[in-house]
Amino acid sequence: MITLFLIGIGTGNPDHLTAQAVQALNGADLILIPKKGAAKSDLAEVRELILSRVLTAPVPVATYDVPTRADQTDYLGAVNDWHDAIARVWKDAITPRLPSGGTVALMVWGDPSLYDSTLRIAARLPGVSVKVIPGITSLQVLTAAHAIPLNTLAAPVTITTGRQLRDHGWPEGTTSLAVMLDKGGAFTAIDPANTTIWWGAYVGMPEETLIHGPLAQVSDEILATRARLRAEHGWIMDIYLLRRGGDV
Amino acid sequence: MITLFLIGIGTGNPDHLTAQAVQALNGADLILIPKKGAAKSDLAEVRELILSRVLTAPVPVATYDVPTRADQTDYLGAVNDWHDAIARVWKDAITPRLPSGGTVALMVWGDPSLYDSTLRIAARLPGVSVKVIPGITSLQVLTAAHAIPLNTLAAPVTITTGRQLRDHGWPEGTTSLAVMLDKGGAFTAIDPANTTIWWGAYVGMPEETLIHGPLAQVSDEILATRARLRAEHGWIMDIYLLRRGGDV
Ligand SMILES: C[S@@+](CC[C@H](N)C(=O)[O-])C[C@H]1O[C@@H](n2cnc3c(N)ncnc32)[C@H](O)[C@@H]1O
Ligand SMILES: C[S@@+](CC[C@H](N)C(=O)[O-])C[C@H]1O[C@@H](n2cnc3c(N)ncnc32)[C@H](O)[C@@H]1O
Repeated sequence: MITLFLIGIGTGNPDHLTAQAVQALNGADLILIPKKGAAKSDLAEVRELILSRVLTAPVPVATYDVPTRADQTDYLGAVNDWHDAIARVWKDAITPRLPSGGTVALMVWGDPSLYDSTLRIAARLPGVSVKVIPGITSLQVLTAAHAIPLNTLAAPVTITTGRQLRDHGWPEGTTSLAVMLDKGGAFTAIDPANTTIWWGAYVGMPEETLIHGPLAQVSDEILATRARLRAEHGWIMDIYLLRRGGDV
Repeated sequence: MITLFLIGIGTGNPDHLTAQAVQALNGADLILIPKKGAAKSDLAEVRELILSRVLTAPVPVATYDVPTRADQTDYLGAVNDWHDAIARVWKDAITPRLPSGGTVALMVWGDPSLYDSTLRIAARLPGVSVKVIPGITSLQVLTAAHAIPLNTLAAPVTITTGRQLRDHGWPEGTTSLAVMLDKGGAFTAIDPANTTIWWGAYVGMPEETLIHGPLAQVSDEILATRARLRAEHGWIMDIYLLRRGGDV
């Protein structure tokens, strides 16, 4: 019997780790981490840094090669195949090391519930019991860095992706809209009137960069800053909150 | 000059605390905590338990009486007056103790960004610089306990209140709807067809209670369980995720 702990680790600052996460890592029989790739965006180093800081005694570590995703036109089909492939790689990394079962820990960026595939991949492993340890999300690090609430008073909030914002526009009935997984500047697809943006790149990391203001005024600055940072670091992750009407 | 740290503490499990939160508490010149009231729902005890566990050296603590909210028909007006009153109480607790400035820490339930007033109250204090330390939200503890993702693949999520769900129904374009601040059973106001619910009360606490299933089948069980638990403990906090269509 294998128990797989999916442990939210926050967004790059090792101090985002909760006591619960530290305990789960120390209690594991095996820790799975992705192999360090050439790209800094693999974020494998943060995981190694975290382990070097929080483990009180050595825990065996197994690294795995992250399969590459096929560039199919059928997006959902490609994602499904990719998840299948990752599940196989995990299984191959775990089974020989824990032939009679045990506890495996996997460090998940941010929180495992939010735009993350590990729960869906883990569900493909038969006979594996999955436990989740929550972690600080990039959205919380964004609002904390700007010292702003996510919602306006007693009002709803929508969390969405760059693609959804481009394809479907501003969702009806929402004053607060958080956007993740944006390949770049999806906010240019909406009318900027009466809209404020709080933007952040690499939130929680040493490279953290923040911009906020009326969307009409800071839109170009964000686009230029994003392009510059991306060229400088070779990769970027950004996130933003948009607010329309209502109090701030 | 006063710096006020609003520190997310998670939802009652002291192990929800991040290393960053522990550092901010230890670095404070003064910690503000609400006075223990008669009601267990004041949750003052969790704050004391956390302090007894994480402080490496004594830090002065100031307790304050939480003003009661007037029961006005004008909801927003009443909330505004209440926030003004709390800001005054905080100021009176801080100023005599830190006449030449310093760092004040305030422990916030869950994360300070999510349906919480402390940022709005802190904004009423002139000359106070506010810093936010993110904490695990009740919504993350709910999804972790059920081991489910918040969103379906690349789809949006809406977070709302019980009152909004009652007044405005299911928000258009959403497959995943998280509901907080429900005075009880707002989910009975929507059509339960094709809808799944994951419900949790006291999530992260010793009293944690979870129910999930097709809304049509478990709705009555949740209502009955909620009423029983509320009578048993004298208070309740619950939260749920609803999913309609799409994958689970
Ligand atoms: C695959 S999702 C994973 C989200 C993660 N599970 C979380 O809880 O934040 C990746 C997206 O999260 C956001 N993100 C994650 N880390 C970030 C960071 N450090 N700075 C800015 N955005 C980040 C970006 O929008 C990025 O496109
Ligand atoms: C004023 S809001 C505060 C939310 C908090 N800032 C957070 O991040 O979770 C209170 C609402 O949060 C939810 N909540 C907070 N703690 C909870 C718990 N331990 N169990 C279930 N729901 C909880 C309930 O929906 C409750 O009505």
